[in-house]
Amino acid sequence: MKVCKFGGTSLASAEQMKKVANIVRADIERKIVVVSAPGKRFKEDTKVTDLLISLADTVLTNGDVEEALRLVVSRYEQIANELNLPQQVVTIIKDDLQSRIQAKEEGDKEFVDLMKASGEDNCAKLFASYLQSLGVDAHYVDPKEAGLLVSKEYGNAQVLPEAYDNLMELRNKEGILVFPGFFGYTHEGTLVTFPRGGSDITGSIVAAGVKAELYENFTDVDSVYAANPNVVKNPVEIKELTYREMRELSYAGFSVFHDEALIPAFKKGIPVCIKNTNNPSAKGTMIVSERNYMVNPVVGIASDSGFSTIYVRKYLMNREVGFGRHLLQILEDEGLSYEHMPSGIDDTSIILRGSQLTPEIEERIVKRIETELHVDDVHVEHDFAMVMIVGEGMRKMVGLTSKATTGLARAGVNIHMINQGSSEVSLVFGVKSVDADKAVSELYLDFFSDVKSPVL
Amino acid sequence: MKVCKFGGTSLASAEQMKKVANIVRADIERKIVVVSAPGKRFKEDTKVTDLLISLADTVLTNGDVEEALRLVVSRYEQIANELNLPQQVVTIIKDDLQSRIQAKEEGDKEFVDLMKASGEDNCAKLFASYLQSLGVDAHYVDPKEAGLLVSKEYGNAQVLPEAYDNLMELRNKEGILVFPGFFGYTHEGTLVTFPRGGSDITGSIVAAGVKAELYENFTDVDSVYAANPNVVKNPVEIKELTYREMRELSYAGFSVFHDEALIPAFKKGIPVCIKNTNNPSAKGTMIVSERNYMVNPVVGIASDSGFSTIYVRKYLMNREVGFGRHLLQILEDEGLSYEHMPSGIDDTSIILRGSQLTPEIEERIVKRIETELHVDDVHVEHDFAMVMIVGEGMRKMVGLTSKATTGLARAGVNIHMINQGSSEVSLVFGVKSVDADKAVSELYLDFFSDVKSPVL
Repeated sequence: MKVCKFGGTSLASAEQMKKVANIVRADIERKIVVVSAPGKRFKEDTKVTDLLISLADTVLTNGDVEEALRLVVSRYEQIANELNLPQQVVTIIKDDLQSRIQAKEEGDKEFVDLMKASGEDNCAKLFASYLQSLGVDAHYVDPKEAGLLVSKEYGNAQVLPEAYDNLMELRNKEGILVFPGFFGYTHEGTLVTFPRGGSDITGSIVAAGVKAELYENFTDVDSVYAANPNVVKNPVEIKELTYREMRELSYAGFSVFHDEALIPAFKKGIPVCIKNTNNPSAKGTMIVSERNYMVNPVVGIASDSGFSTIYVRKYLMNREVGFGRHLLQILEDEGLSYEHMPSGIDDTSIILRGSQLTPEIEERIVKRIETELHVDDVHVEHDFAMVMIVGEGMRKMVGLTSKATTGLARAGVNIHMINQGSSEVSLVFGVKSVDADKAVSELYLDFFSDVKSPVL
Repeated sequence: MKVCKFGGTSLASAEQMKKVANIVRADIERKIVVVSAPGKRFKEDTKVTDLLISLADTVLTNGDVEEALRLVVSRYEQIANELNLPQQVVTIIKDDLQSRIQAKEEGDKEFVDLMKASGEDNCAKLFASYLQSLGVDAHYVDPKEAGLLVSKEYGNAQVLPEAYDNLMELRNKEGILVFPGFFGYTHEGTLVTFPRGGSDITGSIVAAGVKAELYENFTDVDSVYAANPNVVKNPVEIKELTYREMRELSYAGFSVFHDEALIPAFKKGIPVCIKNTNNPSAKGTMIVSERNYMVNPVVGIASDSGFSTIYVRKYLMNREVGFGRHLLQILEDEGLSYEHMPSGIDDTSIILRGSQLTPEIEERIVKRIETELHVDDVHVEHDFAMVMIVGEGMRKMVGLTSKATTGLARAGVNIHMINQGSSEVSLVFGVKSVDADKAVSELYLDFFSDVKSPVL
């Protein structure tokens, strides 16, 4: 049994839905279909989810609800018409939205989650109707009835362990099951949405729950590439990579797959395949537990920007038991997570995502570090990028750091930070954001120039 | 005015004391002489300080005190005889030691400090007598009278700020002042010793107190070398280095000067000169606040072994606010200080000096990390060395990391950890202890092979 998940662009229009239906019908193993809300049809288009957020806003601020509602319904209506579905399908969706709008008294967060989730929910109903219209024994599945239980954290739901056992029951259902992504229900029956990458998370949870042989994640690229195609021209395709490698790549800017979505599949050892809705015959990229890394020790070069560094200097810092702990306590008190903490003898830097630092938070932290830790110097610098070389075979590769740093020196990139020694699958360089693309290009050349496209 | 400090080997015998007297008399600026206890005369010899520790032990365990005392006194006696000093000098020392032995009721720690400190104290008295016998206007200075006030931490005294003002008064004294190193007194008048490198600390404090133009630290080498002469054959001499460089080198195994001893001189900006008692005409090594690092960006290659690494892995670790803080809290609860903490996304390593880890502490820590942090893996590895490239000019040197890592790769050294990004004056590599000498040799060749000996 395969669970396949289709993203927003795969369901953006009638034409796309036809492709999806063909894909589903092409393989009898594709039993469960997890769907996103209809996405953008063209670059300037608006996703249904964004239309829904706007609708929720309009309701809460007593704006022109009719118009905002019309924009949402018309998206479904156009698809339904082009697929020759009965008008009743659209009526059901419109009624559903109107009844959700009535729930605005439940509290803003609950209401927003309820509105947002309708995008996937109604898309699932519509797509199930379409499959039925093609004579397929297809059924919409209500995540509440299926027992997809989650924690009550609006916009940040975490799946509860008992959900997996409940979902296992889906194996016993007849026909093709169309399951809406992005949300689940609490034990009390409240709808709560997942964080970013929500439909990927649902797909991963369902695949883990039914113990699928494969979780196929359909998107709009043929595969995962060894580097960002916007930075490197025609990067090689990655045929196979491990969960760990995928997670490191996702972390550092690879947006194909949101890393958190991998956890349920990872924990149950379900292999994942990234495929292209628009080119389903392409083999795609397999994400697996283990791979033979002797052939390709390095799998990809990634980068992400927007990091800031807090520098702290104090003579004899390393003698002070508790210094590092106190420093991190100050960050924790502000709810900040950090990424790296390289330290010398008398100095420590903390590298964190700059988006967490408002000028007020920055000022408070600097002040606390000054007064509580009696440091000789503390200051914050912004606009750093982390450039990452990822690969399971890296730890066995003698001279890897040398090769990488030589490349960066040749490209004139100043290395502000190196982090090696903890992760076995990545080597991280901190550079100024302005140098990030240059660094990625150079490292790609160094590690991939002798690899023949298109298969790594 | 110069403060000069002489170490144990410079005062180990009558012959050595004659050299010291000549050095002191050769420069009218040498007003204050800080002395250690007589050290080893030959490789298998026992330092007076060790004889004193043994004597203190014997007293506390009711052993053969007479014999242990005789061993100490005979060392002074032999020196006094060879210097033709009156027998009274030895009698004073013997009486002093016997009166200290009576203080054993004061508590073991206080007693041990009192006994240990007698080595320097009596050496100062003896050396002052010797200078007087040569017709020099020399005076022994009692640190209690001089107001060298310290905190009441036995074996780990910290100088109190008011000590500096008190010591300033020494400028007004006539003649040459002989000041015993290694100890001070609390406000209540209790003798407490400094930590390791105690006489160097005294010299540094006194130099800072009297605002000396120069603090000369006499030892048994012509200069500080760019690498350990036991590892690298004929390493170049360092003519000048900064406090920061000296501190990094001391930290990583350069034993010429204990790093903590530099603080008082550093804080008052007193330049320090490392010189050789046995070859006083050699220029020595100057330690200064700033140097022109454009000529020699890298000043030395150091290494130290005996490090252990605690590896911790947990999926999604970087999302957990407070994870790093909690981890360091566990170390702090055990009183452990750490050196480096490189971190990946899902993993963190803590590198610390292995001497702190008994099997019991290691077990407790691992257990707490497992149960409190619910990690996927935690384990400890031992026998690492830190290899360090030190130099003020490093941060301006493009391609430095590349040069270093290329060298290490060529030498077949596997790099387990790199720490760059916090300190501006050092780059640290973690390697297995067995590779440390190979790494130092290779890096020395890479960075110093074109430097002409003997002056850097």
